[in-house]
Amino acid sequence: MPTLKADDLRTLVAGIFAARGTPEADATAVADALVWANLRGIDSHGVSRTPRYVELFDKGQSVPDAVPTVERPRAAIAIVDAHAAPGPVALNRAADEAIAGARECGVGWASVRGTVHTGAIGYYTSRIADAGFAAIGVVAGMPNMAYAGARGAAVATSPLSVAVPADRHELVLLDMATAVMALGRIAQLKAAGKPLPAGAAVTAEGEPTTDPALAAVPLPVGGPKGSGMSLVFELLASGLAGNPIVPAYHSGDKKHRQNAFVLAIDISAFLPLAEFKSAVDETVDAIKALPAAEAEILIPGERGRRTYAERSVTGIPLGPKVWAELTQLANSLALPVPSPS
Amino acid sequence: MPTLKADDLRTLVAGIFAARGTPEADATAVADALVWANLRGIDSHGVSRTPRYVELFDKGQSVPDAVPTVERPRAAIAIVDAHAAPGPVALNRAADEAIAGARECGVGWASVRGTVHTGAIGYYTSRIADAGFAAIGVVAGMPNMAYAGARGAAVATSPLSVAVPADRHELVLLDMATAVMALGRIAQLKAAGKPLPAGAAVTAEGEPTTDPALAAVPLPVGGPKGSGMSLVFELLASGLAGNPIVPAYHSGDKKHRQNAFVLAIDISAFLPLAEFKSAVDETVDAIKALPAAEAEILIPGERGRRTYAERSVTGIPLGPKVWAELTQLANSLALPVPSPS
Repeated sequence: MPTLKADDLRTLVAGIFAARGTPEADATAVADALVWANLRGIDSHGVSRTPRYVELFDKGQSVPDAVPTVERPRAAIAIVDAHAAPGPVALNRAADEAIAGARECGVGWASVRGTVHTGAIGYYTSRIADAGFAAIGVVAGMPNMAYAGARGAAVATSPLSVAVPADRHELVLLDMATAVMALGRIAQLKAAGKPLPAGAAVTAEGEPTTDPALAAVPLPVGGPKGSGMSLVFELLASGLAGNPIVPAYHSGDKKHRQNAFVLAIDISAFLPLAEFKSAVDETVDAIKALPAAEAEILIPGERGRRTYAERSVTGIPLGPKVWAELTQLANSLALPVPSPS
Repeated sequence: MPTLKADDLRTLVAGIFAARGTPEADATAVADALVWANLRGIDSHGVSRTPRYVELFDKGQSVPDAVPTVERPRAAIAIVDAHAAPGPVALNRAADEAIAGARECGVGWASVRGTVHTGAIGYYTSRIADAGFAAIGVVAGMPNMAYAGARGAAVATSPLSVAVPADRHELVLLDMATAVMALGRIAQLKAAGKPLPAGAAVTAEGEPTTDPALAAVPLPVGGPKGSGMSLVFELLASGLAGNPIVPAYHSGDKKHRQNAFVLAIDISAFLPLAEFKSAVDETVDAIKALPAAEAEILIPGERGRRTYAERSVTGIPLGPKVWAELTQLANSLALPVPSPS
């Protein structure tokens, strides 16, 4: 597999966005968000998305140099209209606005209206937690997952992320799809020629399958729990942004778009930040000290952090198809292509 | 099965709390929250809890006439210290405070510190949604569920509730435990002599079981997803309230207590309320119109609402043991006992 240094990938991806008209600072921000996902092992939300953004630019479904605008109708809430800017541009702005609201009011909510691929939502909740706040984030997107009791793609695999800072430990970072298994992971198993676990997906005809090649629709985690979460996340993220996706999609409007919200909580308004972080440490210690049923007990975010540490040194392995697409894109834009190892 | 009219049960339960020292308005509020759960079919969170509250009063772990105090360190956040008041007394106050914060700032967060059994969290998010707000609610409690990769009770089955108001449709109300199956439901299957689905629970020795009599520890929904949600809910609910439960529990402090948070969102600060409700209606319509894989496609909250409508007419069936306990309690307090049908 071609393996690239994170810095080289960042430069390459930022170069592609900049060459397509994204202002330099925004292009760098998009590249950072995507490479972060690769570093953490969430390859489905990483640089492989770059050609997809470019396609959306070509189709006019995303605008490379769109500047999000912000309304703040009340002190603790902001509405970030992305005007079809790439997700990381809009979500970074939302994270900043949520923090600003939290500083003033204790909590700050930012809705994002009308963006495209956000990358991994955990990137933004992590940024908020690194600033000493607790964070909740949700993305609503195009239906691609089953709804309990219905056939076909009904709702999105809308992720939920929660991040809280610790002291001795690294931050606790939950970042989960509402599906048993995200589409990107299904694609990885397909590429690896490995079967899916039972209950993860159905075929286009709605039949259960463990063959990743036949898997067309991922199933929600916990049946009605997962699809119920996805539905209410759509109502909160898209409904409050005044940009509902689910009814439009099922009426035939399948233009790619996403909405989101992030909530920042100013921990220091509740109790001294050090006391909170210490409670997080003690909670993590208590979980880690439990009798293990498997080789190891992991805390949310821990596996991704290890992969990050490893890939920061060894580089980021990319699928041959992903690397070919990126190379081709760079060549077509007369950009230098870094050498994989 | 003894079947009781909702009004009779409310009067009985309010009478028991009042006789044990709870002020009349609070006793009525507790009874209403518990009977609401029974009406919706969530019998595990209903009047069967009454003898448990009384036990907690006897042990000094709950205080029947405690008056919650409220701090508002910033405009959008409130910390409700329950001083060990029964859950509904504290959570009703938190719902009111969250709404007050939302009216002023757009969103309002209320943390609850140190209460006991809250009943069904959906009761409070419903109340907030009925006032025209969107609501999120979480409860953190005593560890009674497995954590992915660990043996024994590690974290709580901490529920998540989200409620949003609709117009033509009833409000959308998600109210789900982070376990595959809540302990109360396992107890119901045990009473009915029915097996558990695979993957719902393990024995005290950590072995998978479908025998409800051997099921000691419920498993988290989606493995690390469910236990990850439970862990971050504990950090948000208990951590921000300065009252961590998980580390204390695993150090031997098993005194019953719960913490919680509710978030109210003033929809009308984002867009006209009628427009939001109409989008919720259209989203529900789109889901309902999908090709069905089962007999019927249900929206979160729909099944509970039907049971509510039915039991409002036919009465609330109680297990013989629950009814015997309530009768005994009423007799011991010299309270009149209503006649079951």
